[in-house]
Amino acid sequence: MQWIEHEKAIRARHTEPPAPVPPAALAQRSGLDLLKSVMLGELPAPPISHTLDFFLIEVEPGRVVFQGHPRAAFYNPIGSVHGGWTSTLLDSCVACAVHSMLPAGKGYTTVELKVNFVRAVMPDTGPLRAEGKVISVGSRIGTAEGRLMDASGKLYAHATTTCLIFDISDMKRDKRSD
Amino acid sequence: MQWIEHEKAIRARHTEPPAPVPPAALAQRSGLDLLKSVMLGELPAPPISHTLDFFLIEVEPGRVVFQGHPRAAFYNPIGSVHGGWTSTLLDSCVACAVHSMLPAGKGYTTVELKVNFVRAVMPDTGPLRAEGKVISVGSRIGTAEGRLMDASGKLYAHATTTCLIFDISDMKRDKRSD
Amino acid sequence: MQWIEHEKAIRARHTEPPAPVPPAALAQRSGLDLLKSVMLGELPAPPISHTLDFFLIEVEPGRVVFQGHPRAAFYNPIGSVHGGWTSTLLDSCVACAVHSMLPAGKGYTTVELKVNFVRAVMPDTGPLRAEGKVISVGSRIGTAEGRLMDASGKLYAHATTTCLIFDISDMKRDKRSD
Amino acid sequence: MQWIEHEKAIRARHTEPPAPVPPAALAQRSGLDLLKSVMLGELPAPPISHTLDFFLIEVEPGRVVFQGHPRAAFYNPIGSVHGGWTSTLLDSCVACAVHSMLPAGKGYTTVELKVNFVRAVMPDTGPLRAEGKVISVGSRIGTAEGRLMDASGKLYAHATTTCLIFDISDMKRDKRSD
Repeated sequence: MQWIEHEKAIRARHTEPPAPVPPAALAQRSGLDLLKSVMLGELPAPPISHTLDFFLIEVEPGRVVFQGHPRAAFYNPIGSVHGGWTSTLLDSCVACAVHSMLPAGKGYTTVELKVNFVRAVMPDTGPLRAEGKVISVGSRIGTAEGRLMDASGKLYAHATTTCLIFDISDMKRDKRSD
Repeated sequence: MQWIEHEKAIRARHTEPPAPVPPAALAQRSGLDLLKSVMLGELPAPPISHTLDFFLIEVEPGRVVFQGHPRAAFYNPIGSVHGGWTSTLLDSCVACAVHSMLPAGKGYTTVELKVNFVRAVMPDTGPLRAEGKVISVGSRIGTAEGRLMDASGKLYAHATTTCLIFDISDMKRDKRSD
Repeated sequence: MQWIEHEKAIRARHTEPPAPVPPAALAQRSGLDLLKSVMLGELPAPPISHTLDFFLIEVEPGRVVFQGHPRAAFYNPIGSVHGGWTSTLLDSCVACAVHSMLPAGKGYTTVELKVNFVRAVMPDTGPLRAEGKVISVGSRIGTAEGRLMDASGKLYAHATTTCLIFDISDMKRDKRSD
Repeated sequence: MQWIEHEKAIRARHTEPPAPVPPAALAQRSGLDLLKSVMLGELPAPPISHTLDFFLIEVEPGRVVFQGHPRAAFYNPIGSVHGGWTSTLLDSCVACAVHSMLPAGKGYTTVELKVNFVRAVMPDTGPLRAEGKVISVGSRIGTAEGRLMDASGKLYAHATTTCLIFDISDMKRDKRSD
C-alpha cells in the first residue's frame, strides 16, 4: 500500500528520539521551514506522535497532512478508537496548517478546536490521513479546517480550529499562561 | 496531596489489564451503573486511559470526573502538552456525563466536541481534573459541558459536546458506521 | 452588478407575502424540490428572510446559496453588522445544504451551529453570499459547512453545522420539543 | 408577568432612536459602565435589538442578560423561530459578558460562536432570557457561555463564544478587517 511506503520512508529519516523542537529553532524559522525540517528528520518528531502513532507526512503552504494508525491501545470503553485520538490528529493538522503560513518571528497557540465525528474508527479501519487546510490567516487570528479519511476517501471526522497569532518577542514578556 | 491519594485508592482496585467493556454489559446496564463498575474495577478500564494516563475518579447522575497526569510523552512540538491530550480528557468527561443519564438499553455516540484551550498544560502543571456536567438530555440528543482544572481551581480548558442517543436494539440493524 | 440582477429576477417571482411552508408540503416533498419551489416563488419565502433582508438564490443537491444585504437596522452597539445577522445567513445556508440531500418523508432539525467571524461586516460591504455545502449525510446525522463572501471573494465568516435527521412520521409522535 | 414589567421599565427610559454607541464612548469607558449606560437609556440601544425585538435587562461584572420576544416575523420556512434569532440573542449575551470585564481602553471582537439548539422556539413560547456568563478572561482572549431559557427555567439553546481582546489604541493602526 502506497500510504504505508510513503510513511516508512519518512520515518526512516528520524534517527533521534522524539522531543520538542528547540526554542531557538521555533523563534528563528518560518512555520513552513520548521514543519518541513520535522518531517525530514532534521528536527525531532514530537513525543505525542510516538505515543499516539501518527506522523507528519506532507507539508506545503497552508496544507499539512498527518498519517496515523488506530491501535487497540487507543480504545475507549465501547470498543472503538477514542475520540481523543481522532481529535489529536485533527488538532495537529489544522494547527500546523495555520503554522505553515507564519513567517519567522511569529508564533501561534490554538484557542479552540471543534471536531465532528462522522464514523467510528475501528481496529480494522487501517491507516487514516488527517489533512488540514487554512481557511483564513490575519495578523492576529488564523482559522483552518481538517478532514480525517481512509485510503478510499471515506470520511471519519472533520474539524475546524481558531489560532491566536502573536510576535514571539511579545510572548516572552506577556505569557498567556498567567 | 489528596487528589493523588484518591486516585491511588481507585487504581488499586483495577487488577485486570485495560480493555473495552464487554458488549453484553453495555447493552444490559444503565450508564451510571456501568461507569461506577468501571471506576470500582469490576469492569476493566479502557485502554486509552492507560496510554494517556487518566482515570475515572467520580461518577454521579449527570456528573463525571477524570483525573490525568501531563507527561513528557504527550508533548507537542512546542514543548507543552498536546491539545489532543486535553481534548481526550474533556471528551471523556462530557460524553460520560451524558452516558450517566441513560437507562439500560440506550446507547450514545459523540457527534461533536468543541474545546477551548485557556492555558498551556506544562510538565510541572501537576494532576488535572476534567469535570463533565450534563446540560440537556432529550430522547435523541444529549449535551454536556466540561472543565479541566488543577488542584487550585485554575482553568486550563473547557468544552461542550453533542451526543446522539439511540436504542441499542436499533443500533444493531442500523449501524451509523456505514 | 450581476449579483443584484440575479436576486432581482428571483424576488420578482415572489408575489405572496412571506410565510412558513405549509406542513403538508414539508412532509410530501424532497428537500431539493421544496427549496427550489421556495426559490422560484411557488412557495412563500420565510418571514425571517424579509426581516433580515436575505434571499435564497441557488439550490442544487448538497449546495445552497443565500444573498443578503447588510443594513443599518442590523447594527450592533459598536457600529458594525451584528454577528447574529451573519449567523442567520450561515445557519440558513448550511441547514438547507443538508435539507437539499433529504428525500421526501425525511425531516431535519439543526442541533448545533459554529460560526467563525473573520472580518467586520460594515455598511459599505455590499451584498454578501452565504454558500453552504454538505460535508456528510448519514441516516441520522448530517453536517455541512458554509462561507460568507462578497462579490470579490473576500471571506467575512465561515461556519459548520450538525443536523439531526428523522422520519417525519416518527416526529409526530416523538416531538423533540418536549 | 414580572419579566414583562421589568423590561417595560427599562424600555421606557429609551427615548432616543436605536443607534450604535458613539466611538468616543466606546474608547473612554469600561465595558461595564458602557453596558449599564445602554441599559439605562443614557446611550442608545443598538438597531439590531429593535429589528429582532430583544433588550438588555441586566448587567453586572461577568454576567449579562437580554430578554427577547419570538415573533412571526422571525419564522423560518418550517414554522418555528429561525435559529438565527436564537443565535443573535446568545451572541449578544456572551459577547457582552466578556465586554463587562474589560477596563476602559480595551476593546473586543467576537472570533467565534457555538450554539446548541435544544428545543424549537415557537410563537407561543413567550419571552425568553439569554444569560451570558464569563468563563475566562485573559489579556488577549475571553470566553463565555450562555443559556436561553423561558420564565419556567426551560432551556431552549446554549452557547459558548471566544472573543479577541485588544487595546483600542492598537486597533486604530492595525485593523483586523484588512
